[in-house]
Amino acid sequence: MKYKRKKRLTPEEYANGVIAGNRVILSRAITLIESRHSDDLILAEKVLELILPHTGGSLRVGITGVPGVGKSTFIESFGKYITSRTLKLAVLTIDPSSQISGGSILGDKTRMEELSNDPLAYVRPSAAGNALGGVNHKTRETMLLCEAAGFDVILIETVGVGQSETTVKGIVDFFLLLMLAGAGDELQGIKRGIMEMADAIAITKCDNDNIHQGKLAKAEYQNALHLFPPAETGWSPKVMTCSSLQNEGLDNILEDILSFEKHMKSKGYFQSNRQQQNLHWMHETIDNYLKRAFINNPNVTQQMDTLENEVIQNKLPAIAGARKLIELFNKKID
Amino acid sequence: MKYKRKKRLTPEEYANGVIAGNRVILSRAITLIESRHSDDLILAEKVLELILPHTGGSLRVGITGVPGVGKSTFIESFGKYITSRTLKLAVLTIDPSSQISGGSILGDKTRMEELSNDPLAYVRPSAAGNALGGVNHKTRETMLLCEAAGFDVILIETVGVGQSETTVKGIVDFFLLLMLAGAGDELQGIKRGIMEMADAIAITKCDNDNIHQGKLAKAEYQNALHLFPPAETGWSPKVMTCSSLQNEGLDNILEDILSFEKHMKSKGYFQSNRQQQNLHWMHETIDNYLKRAFINNPNVTQQMDTLENEVIQNKLPAIAGARKLIELFNKKID
Repeated sequence: MKYKRKKRLTPEEYANGVIAGNRVILSRAITLIESRHSDDLILAEKVLELILPHTGGSLRVGITGVPGVGKSTFIESFGKYITSRTLKLAVLTIDPSSQISGGSILGDKTRMEELSNDPLAYVRPSAAGNALGGVNHKTRETMLLCEAAGFDVILIETVGVGQSETTVKGIVDFFLLLMLAGAGDELQGIKRGIMEMADAIAITKCDNDNIHQGKLAKAEYQNALHLFPPAETGWSPKVMTCSSLQNEGLDNILEDILSFEKHMKSKGYFQSNRQQQNLHWMHETIDNYLKRAFINNPNVTQQMDTLENEVIQNKLPAIAGARKLIELFNKKID
Repeated sequence: MKYKRKKRLTPEEYANGVIAGNRVILSRAITLIESRHSDDLILAEKVLELILPHTGGSLRVGITGVPGVGKSTFIESFGKYITSRTLKLAVLTIDPSSQISGGSILGDKTRMEELSNDPLAYVRPSAAGNALGGVNHKTRETMLLCEAAGFDVILIETVGVGQSETTVKGIVDFFLLLMLAGAGDELQGIKRGIMEMADAIAITKCDNDNIHQGKLAKAEYQNALHLFPPAETGWSPKVMTCSSLQNEGLDNILEDILSFEKHMKSKGYFQSNRQQQNLHWMHETIDNYLKRAFINNPNVTQQMDTLENEVIQNKLPAIAGARKLIELFNKKID
């Protein structure tokens, strides 16, 4: 899809607008961050450097769960509960099917309609792009922009089936896992290992006929969590029930997140975790660059399929295949 | 420590000796594989290419558990049970404190003494080297050599506290987690996420006063495993109790591993898993090379600490730090 790019602002105009909480400029800055144009990359970095001293003030919360668990409805209800406590809220949602066109998102208009109209809330759907599971490669920088814009809480949604949970776990303070009661294992479908990442589990749709099942599920999951080795921080994840339809249990979830923040800050883990996340993000960015440079190298590209096949078929030792590709990579390109 | 290297054999001499099941040559081939001398790297690769058509026949089993769970004792008893079934067994154990000197291992003489003297068993302790948690960077190639030497079962031990479990999970067919009954969470100490990797859990030391606690723990863990999303392969991990002292429950564990093999082979997962592991190992080897080349680049080395600190202190955006280091990496070295 071709489109004409909007005129860019100066780095200072972006940064000052964002810091002043100007929603229009915030949205344009996010579009800039998400752009893959090489001019934009440099400009985006300058904006980030300017806003950096104004970041760090939000509570960063990741929310995940499989399709069907009621993520959008939960975020709408939970978000409205948060703003009812006069906290400013930014929501970064992922819509794998959405398309970016000139910076505005087509489709996805009907999701979280009430929250979108809430003056204390800012909802930004992101096109998932190529990222499996929906985390945009610039989600972390988008979060920093929202932070500089003065939001108290940032919710980041992922779809719970891909690599994206590990990525989100690596950029948030608190990771909330939504689960269904009594859906049976096969319907839960979340990736193995995700339960152990959770700082809390919320069982959704605990209303009407589901209340009893919800309570059973809560006890079961709480039991299961006890069997996991404890986190180094001393935090024990809770299992809570909630109903987005009847606005029940949302207060408990927010209280839990706030007491987590208090616990982590009192022990010094809050800050040290963020510092490690900064460092990790830098190295992850470097690793991604190195991998891209490798697989895009024309010498490598030419031989990759053949060598991969020989290795898969056990005709060539994996380390010999690796060495051959590395030699091709280091060879001058003809 | 300085030592004179033994004279190397030709690739064909190594390969033929290994394939003939000659223990002395197998040990020398493993020493060659573990060597970091650049001549040895090429020679080792040639040996691997020659033995590759003779690999694939063993059942590869990873065993993990924290210190104190009784890993060595378990492997000794379980290993002797395996050889009592006239299966040839290789055991690759990790001794973080051991030192390699001219290819022979100092210390560690008393571990698994009986098994070491069993003519059907071959025990090879590896120095952990720099690898945290004890997996040698050449464990996979060592395993392939043992496979070519005709062992039916290969047990690979890791210490259960580091990154090494993910590595071992990526090279074995079956992953067995050893746990203590009633030790309390704080004593279990295994890394989060490891329980979800297990193809079976064995509760050790279920003898004398521990029998009752063992049964309770079995029920609890079995319950917990039910809450995990099921593996794509349809395999449900079992929890079993055993006593290495009284040689109890070892038969059940071997039966479980063999029925896992049967299950996976009948569904085609056994072979496809190994093919994916081959491919994964090649890419992991490449990634390690790229990372090493990056951090050893003199321009990068010079600036790394400074930039890391600025990123940790939030003075520089992580992606800007990454870009600066990448530019240094791509710059010609003066």
